[in-house]
Amino acid sequence: MRKVAIIGTGMTKVDKHWRKSLKELFGEAGIAALNQTGSPAIDCLIVGNMCASDLSDQNNIGALLADYLGFVPNTAYRVEAACGSGGAAFLAAYSAVASGMYDVVMTGGVEKLTDGVGGNTTLSLGKAADAEYELFYGSSFVSLNAMIMRYYMDHYGVPREAFADFAVLMHRNGSRNPFAQLPFEIKRETVLNSDMISDPITLFDCAPVGDGAAALILCPLEDAKKYSDDFVEVAGISGATDTINIASRESLLSFRSTVTAADRAYRMAHISPADIDVAEIHDTFTITGVLSLEDLGFCERGKFHKMMMNGAFEPGGVVAVNPSGGLKSRGHPVGATGAYQIAELFLQLTGRAGKMQVPDASIGLAQNIGGSGSSTYVTVLRRV
Amino acid sequence: MRKVAIIGTGMTKVDKHWRKSLKELFGEAGIAALNQTGSPAIDCLIVGNMCASDLSDQNNIGALLADYLGFVPNTAYRVEAACGSGGAAFLAAYSAVASGMYDVVMTGGVEKLTDGVGGNTTLSLGKAADAEYELFYGSSFVSLNAMIMRYYMDHYGVPREAFADFAVLMHRNGSRNPFAQLPFEIKRETVLNSDMISDPITLFDCAPVGDGAAALILCPLEDAKKYSDDFVEVAGISGATDTINIASRESLLSFRSTVTAADRAYRMAHISPADIDVAEIHDTFTITGVLSLEDLGFCERGKFHKMMMNGAFEPGGVVAVNPSGGLKSRGHPVGATGAYQIAELFLQLTGRAGKMQVPDASIGLAQNIGGSGSSTYVTVLRRV
Repeated sequence: MRKVAIIGTGMTKVDKHWRKSLKELFGEAGIAALNQTGSPAIDCLIVGNMCASDLSDQNNIGALLADYLGFVPNTAYRVEAACGSGGAAFLAAYSAVASGMYDVVMTGGVEKLTDGVGGNTTLSLGKAADAEYELFYGSSFVSLNAMIMRYYMDHYGVPREAFADFAVLMHRNGSRNPFAQLPFEIKRETVLNSDMISDPITLFDCAPVGDGAAALILCPLEDAKKYSDDFVEVAGISGATDTINIASRESLLSFRSTVTAADRAYRMAHISPADIDVAEIHDTFTITGVLSLEDLGFCERGKFHKMMMNGAFEPGGVVAVNPSGGLKSRGHPVGATGAYQIAELFLQLTGRAGKMQVPDASIGLAQNIGGSGSSTYVTVLRRV
Repeated sequence: MRKVAIIGTGMTKVDKHWRKSLKELFGEAGIAALNQTGSPAIDCLIVGNMCASDLSDQNNIGALLADYLGFVPNTAYRVEAACGSGGAAFLAAYSAVASGMYDVVMTGGVEKLTDGVGGNTTLSLGKAADAEYELFYGSSFVSLNAMIMRYYMDHYGVPREAFADFAVLMHRNGSRNPFAQLPFEIKRETVLNSDMISDPITLFDCAPVGDGAAALILCPLEDAKKYSDDFVEVAGISGATDTINIASRESLLSFRSTVTAADRAYRMAHISPADIDVAEIHDTFTITGVLSLEDLGFCERGKFHKMMMNGAFEPGGVVAVNPSGGLKSRGHPVGATGAYQIAELFLQLTGRAGKMQVPDASIGLAQNIGGSGSSTYVTVLRRV
């Protein structure tokens, strides 16, 4: 299996991009990545997206974007794993390069959730759940996660305020990110006093709905220097699943998909959680972020709050978590989120993260969840 | 790059499966494939689907089906390339095994086009086209192909009846296929006198709308004997693209994506079109089948009719084309079609195709198109 490097990235700011189509969004990110790498010929494009069929009347996005970016007649297709689509596309792209089938592959994700031509964003996002056993009965994506949060609070005796503090940290981080959708600081009271969405989840427990695209260019590690002086190695990668409906699980206090994917990725990279300098974790809701911290092995179960308040998840602590602001503040264009996470780690590991920079970051981890934990993609990157 | 084998397949009959869900359809195909191979542990599931978000309110189908088939916590995701989704999923699965990332991978496709909970099948299929430059202006999938057919007839002076004869051959073949949706013979007049859909395309020029699933199990060629006595080698594989909207093309008389994918797959397999014994080609409409014959190198441009009437595309001729009945008679559950094609070749090359059997078939080709030629996946299989 060939070793694989990331040689370039591009992102759009996450925002309400009412004047930009899917093509224009991914085009902006893709061209930025190409410009970083001397515009090599792209042998294959593998792009993550969840909602374009519902909200933009567009499938066949691989061909659409290959056409727009000038990659025709080369291979292109879309990968979908709900909110994990970007991570799943990255995994497919990794194996496309590792296998020797393709030398230079562009991957990434694009999502346009606002100002679509059709559909309903809440319903579209709900299709990540089990249509027959969850969606049909009126469950929404947020209501399923609200049940998990309530159970967690009761089980560990963790107060609701502790989750608000997670959101405060994310917004503090995101206020330094030029690509963030919500680049401003908030107070604990902002979360507690914001509108109730699905008890106990309030508006500021939730990642915002936004549009965006991120692109990444991969090639064999041995060829990386041909294209760029700044590249990182993909040291570990794994995708794992759990039951699609949360009622079938043994526990709601942990996402088995994250535990499995992390364990496999750590073993592949020959590291343990303690070796990670910077992590971009999947905090769709504050509860999702907290479970992720635990499932990835960054903190003891039920004990995140004290650690967090002592700076454990900031530079100089146990691991710098979401210096980008995470889904909460950077934003969550669902099918692109996994690609944003990896693009942000690329900036960190090549020392170009600006005000977000974690000093001396050399190993980074991205964790991208699809559905309410029904799939997770974990990627470990290493500075070369 | 590891060599890859197909060790087992399963299919449902293509039909209006009003009493079966996506899970039950793919489950039936997947379990049949597992039973053929001694039920090995599946390391990864990569499944093709186009319309489930629109018609079944269901995304995240990788996790859904991995859960149903008992593959949790292993990797699973969906691949989408419109009607080419099955072929694209197979390509992703091929690289997953070839890379060494996964040892035993299930791929395939599932589609439920009838009796969905929501949406509109014609609109959903139209999303394979360019939403902004084709769909928005009222083009449907059939109207785009009708323009291509009209232009072909005018350019080469080929009469409309010649296309009807292609449909007659497909139905003759399909009448021997126990999994076909329309397993009956028709006459030239059946096509000519059937309802006009989009001039000059009539109802019997079109593949039917149906539900179905097909599954395939892949492993490294060197391990194939562990699982089955009957296996075939994936000798060549390629995916290629063209512009998504047909107005941007240099020619409508050929699909560049098919020409490119075929050329690359032939070179990888070290063969020429003359070496193919049996081909499953993508005949969404009779015109699509005819262009495919030409683009794959099986006949001179504009000359298919005389060759066809002389038996060139039947066993003993140049190449046996669509012994399954093709999309026209076997049926076209869009995201599953590419998987059906490969499953049917597997039966041919292992001598288990029953009344459809092409004598001494040793090399087979599958050609799966997404959109109106915006992407094509070509796979060459070899009897071992």
